[in-house]
Amino acid sequence: MEKFELDILGCGSAIPTTLHNPSSQVLNIREKLFMIDCGEGTQLQFRRSRLRFGRLNQIFISHLHGDHCFGLIGLISTLALLGRTGNLTIHSVPGLEEVLRPQIDFFCKDNPFRVKIETFDPKKSEIIYEDRSLTVKTIPLSHRVPCAGFLFQEKQKDAHLLVDMVKFYNIPLKELTAIKQGADFVTEDGVVVANERLTTPAEPARSYAYCSDTAYNEKIIPIIEGVDLLYHEATFATSEALRAKQTGHSTAAQAAEIAKLANVKKLMLGHFSARYTDNKILLDEAIKIFPNTILANEGLREKL
Amino acid sequence: MEKFELDILGCGSAIPTTLHNPSSQVLNIREKLFMIDCGEGTQLQFRRSRLRFGRLNQIFISHLHGDHCFGLIGLISTLALLGRTGNLTIHSVPGLEEVLRPQIDFFCKDNPFRVKIETFDPKKSEIIYEDRSLTVKTIPLSHRVPCAGFLFQEKQKDAHLLVDMVKFYNIPLKELTAIKQGADFVTEDGVVVANERLTTPAEPARSYAYCSDTAYNEKIIPIIEGVDLLYHEATFATSEALRAKQTGHSTAAQAAEIAKLANVKKLMLGHFSARYTDNKILLDEAIKIFPNTILANEGLREKL
Repeated sequence: MEKFELDILGCGSAIPTTLHNPSSQVLNIREKLFMIDCGEGTQLQFRRSRLRFGRLNQIFISHLHGDHCFGLIGLISTLALLGRTGNLTIHSVPGLEEVLRPQIDFFCKDNPFRVKIETFDPKKSEIIYEDRSLTVKTIPLSHRVPCAGFLFQEKQKDAHLLVDMVKFYNIPLKELTAIKQGADFVTEDGVVVANERLTTPAEPARSYAYCSDTAYNEKIIPIIEGVDLLYHEATFATSEALRAKQTGHSTAAQAAEIAKLANVKKLMLGHFSARYTDNKILLDEAIKIFPNTILANEGLREKL
Repeated sequence: MEKFELDILGCGSAIPTTLHNPSSQVLNIREKLFMIDCGEGTQLQFRRSRLRFGRLNQIFISHLHGDHCFGLIGLISTLALLGRTGNLTIHSVPGLEEVLRPQIDFFCKDNPFRVKIETFDPKKSEIIYEDRSLTVKTIPLSHRVPCAGFLFQEKQKDAHLLVDMVKFYNIPLKELTAIKQGADFVTEDGVVVANERLTTPAEPARSYAYCSDTAYNEKIIPIIEGVDLLYHEATFATSEALRAKQTGHSTAAQAAEIAKLANVKKLMLGHFSARYTDNKILLDEAIKIFPNTILANEGLREKL
């Protein structure tokens, strides 16, 4: 299986603590790195993770609260000092250009690469990035400021041809693409050979959904339905449900409820409030509703 | 002795590493905290040092390179989240207002305290802060951009009165201030009682000089003459002397030469290049010229 791994660089919330860094994570898909959010200190966490700066070309910013974007200017400065030349694209809710560009212009005057900031509308779900193997779609979230999550979906790959069967039926080259994509083969004599006899299935396409920051919001369920891994914010325990609602955040139980309703395969909780020195209380509350739940943690690498 | 302590929060240079954070330090003078420079991640280092955010009212920014100021917006945001109400004053070379204020306006809309940015001219040495016990004077440095260091000088305190002697000579209350400041006492009979018989000396006033970033520059010597502790940047070893000159930095040997010429009591080296995984080479080169030298390190607390 080709690489599809999530590295947690930070999973704390607004106030950084000695336990948790502010939000940032990196999805490594076949050695292409996709960063999601970039709180203060992200570049250092990136370095600790031993990921390679040169592999990072796309950054996704969910919303413009400091704990999700204050690390951008430091990261960009360091990339410039390291002599990067390739463009860097930042996908963001509107407004980043106005606050980040003046900093880049001031602090990175001799920047040897271009920073492109591409804006998306966080109110609708749409594909904002696509390459040969992946699409990234936005997930409108419900927070105090415009905010979106991101759904990373591997594209379905072709089935594998059974070489012996291809030879046995002497299948012409021009038909192989159709067969890899599911077609049956018809011999010169008009005999239909079922596709299942000619191929073995492709690896299933994997998917990852990032949902932070958000209040409980069932509207996201159709978008994240059945994903392999859902990262959902769980800033608070149920005892703080009112505070969660007031601040546009979720409790661990609410995150689990979403995971259950969306029938995801695994749930990872994150964006922990600084008040919890041990997040086990959040895990316990979630597991009662959705058993396959884990806690995010700095340094955690989750293979999909 | 009242407190006069230096906490090193970061002593790396432009590229942060897993060994060193970018520049920041805090001088604790009688529980008033003075921050010098504020690279990315400073707020977290501050938290680790167990210093109290509420005691911090003055920040001094030597120059506008990212590794000396990217941590300001995160620190200010956190102070706002913690409910601070007292003003915060940032003393800086010109230009900070233009890059920091838009960030404060955008990210700290409901900021319950005011951030005052006071600008100084880094080309001259002048007092930019003064309170009952302290003055802070700028030290013009020689770097690629306008840059100044800071000299923190405790004010000379009054001598201590010897209570028994005051009683013995029946010295009137109104004369005591003059005596504490060094005057002799003249009795009604015209007998002169020497000040030394009436007082014990005050504790010596302490001083700390911060010089980063700078090329070798003998012009600073008269300003830092005889300080108790000099922090001088030592980005490079002597083997990189040319690179130091080209980039407006110093070698460890040059820092030691300045310490020796300025007759300081102790030298602390810092602002280490990311190329050194062990800074002992810098210490060794400095000690040959100025023996009372130590290396800065994150978490180091130096009492003056």
